[in-house]
Amino acid sequence: MSNFASQRHDCANRIDLALQGFLTPRKLSGSGIAPDILVEAIRHGVLNGGKRLRPILLIQSAAIFSISEKQATRAAMAVELVHCYSLIHDDLPAMDNDDLRRGQPTVHKAYDEATAILAGDALLAHAFELLSHSDCHPDPQVRIDLVAELAKASGAGGMAGGQSLDLQGEKTRFSEKQIEQMQKMKTGALIYAAVRMGAIIGGADEKQLLSLSTYAQAAGRAFQLADDILDLTASTEQMGKTTGKDAAAKKPTLVARIGLKAAKRHLGDTIHTALSALMMFGPKADDLRATARFFGDRES
Amino acid sequence: MSNFASQRHDCANRIDLALQGFLTPRKLSGSGIAPDILVEAIRHGVLNGGKRLRPILLIQSAAIFSISEKQATRAAMAVELVHCYSLIHDDLPAMDNDDLRRGQPTVHKAYDEATAILAGDALLAHAFELLSHSDCHPDPQVRIDLVAELAKASGAGGMAGGQSLDLQGEKTRFSEKQIEQMQKMKTGALIYAAVRMGAIIGGADEKQLLSLSTYAQAAGRAFQLADDILDLTASTEQMGKTTGKDAAAKKPTLVARIGLKAAKRHLGDTIHTALSALMMFGPKADDLRATARFFGDRES
Repeated sequence: MSNFASQRHDCANRIDLALQGFLTPRKLSGSGIAPDILVEAIRHGVLNGGKRLRPILLIQSAAIFSISEKQATRAAMAVELVHCYSLIHDDLPAMDNDDLRRGQPTVHKAYDEATAILAGDALLAHAFELLSHSDCHPDPQVRIDLVAELAKASGAGGMAGGQSLDLQGEKTRFSEKQIEQMQKMKTGALIYAAVRMGAIIGGADEKQLLSLSTYAQAAGRAFQLADDILDLTASTEQMGKTTGKDAAAKKPTLVARIGLKAAKRHLGDTIHTALSALMMFGPKADDLRATARFFGDRES
Repeated sequence: MSNFASQRHDCANRIDLALQGFLTPRKLSGSGIAPDILVEAIRHGVLNGGKRLRPILLIQSAAIFSISEKQATRAAMAVELVHCYSLIHDDLPAMDNDDLRRGQPTVHKAYDEATAILAGDALLAHAFELLSHSDCHPDPQVRIDLVAELAKASGAGGMAGGQSLDLQGEKTRFSEKQIEQMQKMKTGALIYAAVRMGAIIGGADEKQLLSLSTYAQAAGRAFQLADDILDLTASTEQMGKTTGKDAAAKKPTLVARIGLKAAKRHLGDTIHTALSALMMFGPKADDLRATARFFGDRES
């Protein structure tokens, strides 16, 4: 494992520990009593060995501004909860109807549909709860800016809208541009938000935020391109989820539209764009650079 | 119509106008493009002639502190979006499987299940987006406190948990206490949050917040009791939703457990508790008093 890969691995483990500590009956109960089955379903949907790429991006982005991993962890957890909620809902029978996620039964398979819907709903709410607490950041203006960023990424012009477009795309033939728009919202929006939230915690100025936004947009596109390529070329075992499903479901992917070779070239170009955007940060952005390169090389 | 009833009616109309103004493709799009079908489904689920009781409670609570309706409207809208999201998800086939809501087809009937799930998801996100904006309140500390309050009400110890308990209650015989806990979370939590959010906007001190919390808890219980009683006694036409469903689905309601007469007496006591909690506010709380009394008298 490269130095960067092992750093990423360790960081993911620490995020897992933090998530485990937050997703307890007591902490999820607020002033009520969180039902056992719902807490279990939430833990099943979150604590499943995910790669934690979004929280890692947030932490790496904040690190440019000398923000410690500890200080960025609450916001990082919030982003991961939103990611996990979206996976739980996307897997539902009414959506992508997936039985397998990271090698385990999906939440509606391990529990039931109603519980999976509610687990997702609760996770979205708890993400904002995490951001609202002063442990997230001492300055309420920073916390509310994080809320704004995450809410925008999750709404009808972000992830929810992207998933809606994705489902429509199974029925109509999308143009290359439409596929890019869909993927930008479905996958890109949260990656974009993660990187920007790190910058917001770090007190980035406008120019810095703009550069990191350019990086984030390119990184998000690279991630999705790699995902589409892997769906076509990797085995189910490798990915821990059913592969080849995009083609089977007539999902609109760029690979299907422009072909594998062009998609791989496009991936390379996109990673180059991401790296170029980090120029102004010098070696402080090396971790973010490594993550973008990893998006191009990943095998699962 | 009484003076209070006509005030409530006018206030609901103004909230509707504000919701109509916010739930547009442009405002829901953020930096993406909200799909038409999702925007339509969201509007169908929200702009349906709801009574807007939660936003009204928030506005009436804020009014005690001389906060104008206009100043409280964004937070009021956020509460209503969360309410509407929960109705859309509760109506889903995997949950209560309801075809009718306020005399109209439910969102998954008018559109499809996937769109209904996503419309609910998006609404929850947009509720927090509304609170994050400086138009909601100039002080970021107030805004983040509103986020905390709404998130807690929505999570596993609040509405999502309450709905999970409600579904479990169809399979096991709940005690009176368990039913109360379930209803406190499922219905009570958001009413509680609405009243407290008004107080937070108003800058209430601790004693005032405590009194309003007592009011809110009692008002929430009264509302649910009245709802259970009406499900048993009112017609589907009167309610605009399928009635008699609780008994048919073996839903755990207090009425089923303690009987209609005891439930009505309990309702009277609960409204008395709500009114008593408002003592310290004098005539400034008359609107909140009228709303609590209305919960006891309502016929739909």
